[in-house]
Amino acid sequence: MEHLGTVAIVGVGLIGGSIGRALRARSLADRIVGIGRREAALEEARRLGAIDAGTTVLEQGVAEADVVVVCTPVTSIAADVCRAAGHGPENLLVTDAGSTKARIVAEVEAVPRGVATFVGAHPIAGSERSGVAAARADLLVNRTCVLTPTARTPRDRLERARQFWTLLGCRLVEMEPEAHDAALARTSHLPHAVAAALAAAVPAELLSLAAGGYRDTTRVAGSDPDLWTAIFLDNRQPVLTALADVQDELASFRRALEAGDDAWIRRWWAAARARRARFDVPNPRPDPEMP
Amino acid sequence: MEHLGTVAIVGVGLIGGSIGRALRARSLADRIVGIGRREAALEEARRLGAIDAGTTVLEQGVAEADVVVVCTPVTSIAADVCRAAGHGPENLLVTDAGSTKARIVAEVEAVPRGVATFVGAHPIAGSERSGVAAARADLLVNRTCVLTPTARTPRDRLERARQFWTLLGCRLVEMEPEAHDAALARTSHLPHAVAAALAAAVPAELLSLAAGGYRDTTRVAGSDPDLWTAIFLDNRQPVLTALADVQDELASFRRALEAGDDAWIRRWWAAARARRARFDVPNPRPDPEMP
Repeated sequence: MEHLGTVAIVGVGLIGGSIGRALRARSLADRIVGIGRREAALEEARRLGAIDAGTTVLEQGVAEADVVVVCTPVTSIAADVCRAAGHGPENLLVTDAGSTKARIVAEVEAVPRGVATFVGAHPIAGSERSGVAAARADLLVNRTCVLTPTARTPRDRLERARQFWTLLGCRLVEMEPEAHDAALARTSHLPHAVAAALAAAVPAELLSLAAGGYRDTTRVAGSDPDLWTAIFLDNRQPVLTALADVQDELASFRRALEAGDDAWIRRWWAAARARRARFDVPNPRPDPEMP
Repeated sequence: MEHLGTVAIVGVGLIGGSIGRALRARSLADRIVGIGRREAALEEARRLGAIDAGTTVLEQGVAEADVVVVCTPVTSIAADVCRAAGHGPENLLVTDAGSTKARIVAEVEAVPRGVATFVGAHPIAGSERSGVAAARADLLVNRTCVLTPTARTPRDRLERARQFWTLLGCRLVEMEPEAHDAALARTSHLPHAVAAALAAAVPAELLSLAAGGYRDTTRVAGSDPDLWTAIFLDNRQPVLTALADVQDELASFRRALEAGDDAWIRRWWAAARARRARFDVPNPRPDPEMP
């Protein structure tokens, strides 16, 4: 098995913490250094076995790293990647776990030391919960991780990034940053926006009359407001395009319902159901820990 | 413990089958008779322990019943209730499990024998799966069941209906039929419509890039097209009203995103999240059998 040496994790929350726990569970690293803003959170991460040591000083944390994985909110990633690239060893690999890619990759590639070390990544896993206390060693196992190398990405760094994410248990897909953002606008950002709109449309006093349909359809509305506001703004145009389609679907449904067009509604529903059924094949049933 | 005598279940699918299995698991009935359209489905229900005996002739199945519970699709319930009421013993209680109530109750109350025997009910439980093979003895346990008696409902039948649904493990709520339909339009029918619209807006070729957010937000789009077309049409105006609100929420989100108004998006998300958080208190975490 490959060995990763010293891995520095910038941002030890749900994703960063899960990476740390997976590295340790699989004995993939000599040393796992956590980098964060708050001492208390780093201490909690250490106690939970997500990191070996923590520091609030990024430059110190990356100084001896072989790999840095940046798991901060999307608004901070490009700057954190560039700082890590500038202060780590010559041979450093920097990767990230951001939910958006185009702007981040462009900003990193504007910096020579960034382009020399960075491979953009997005492990597609998560939960409406956040923080290291929700981290799990198996969060990324069998999950898709999108890598977004460009023509400028060094071959050896790409090879090492593939190795890093594969060792964590991910299935890899490689895409252009823009194609990633357009796809995730639909498969992830849109469901989040729709869940919040639905949660906003159901008054609290009716919730005793809600059951499994409401529960699941709105679950991700419980996600962190700051994280999701940043993702929507970072991926604005693709989200607007995807949003227009779901708005059109609802408008069509409204017209058919107003007209009492049962044949249309049945066809529409059957088509949506057939499409949804194609999701279940490659994806495992949810486990009890991830409701 | 109370005893229910002979219980006839009209429509032995997910809900009817779960009622049969619960009656048997709790030893609540002397005899459980299933009434359905297909011999093979009744035989499967018998084999799975949901009923003791089955018949395709409703008049025969209800002839000796103390309680009849009608679990057919909403389009059939009123007629099935009236037929059962007309052919069962004098002392019969008829109740149902329909997802809509106003039209059903009005149609049943237009028939003297209907109004003399019937108490409308809606146990709020289900799954995107259908058929007796998905039935579970605990499907209704700790679920809310709405009873919709009217001024014309006989007191003794109401008391017996309360007893029946309580014995099955439900928590009871009593509402006007119209208030039930307005509430369920939001808490159940709206999430189903939104799930289907979302499933329709995500192309199949992107599903390998979807994860838990998509999975849960679209789960109920896997429900039966005929059942849901009938529910939407039966509850047309309340669903249209609720739909307008979710369309307004999405339109407001679009405007804020177009304007790059991060403060608005953050406030909107935080409010939706706070509302969603109030759901989790009285509701158990989903179990692994009900993804």
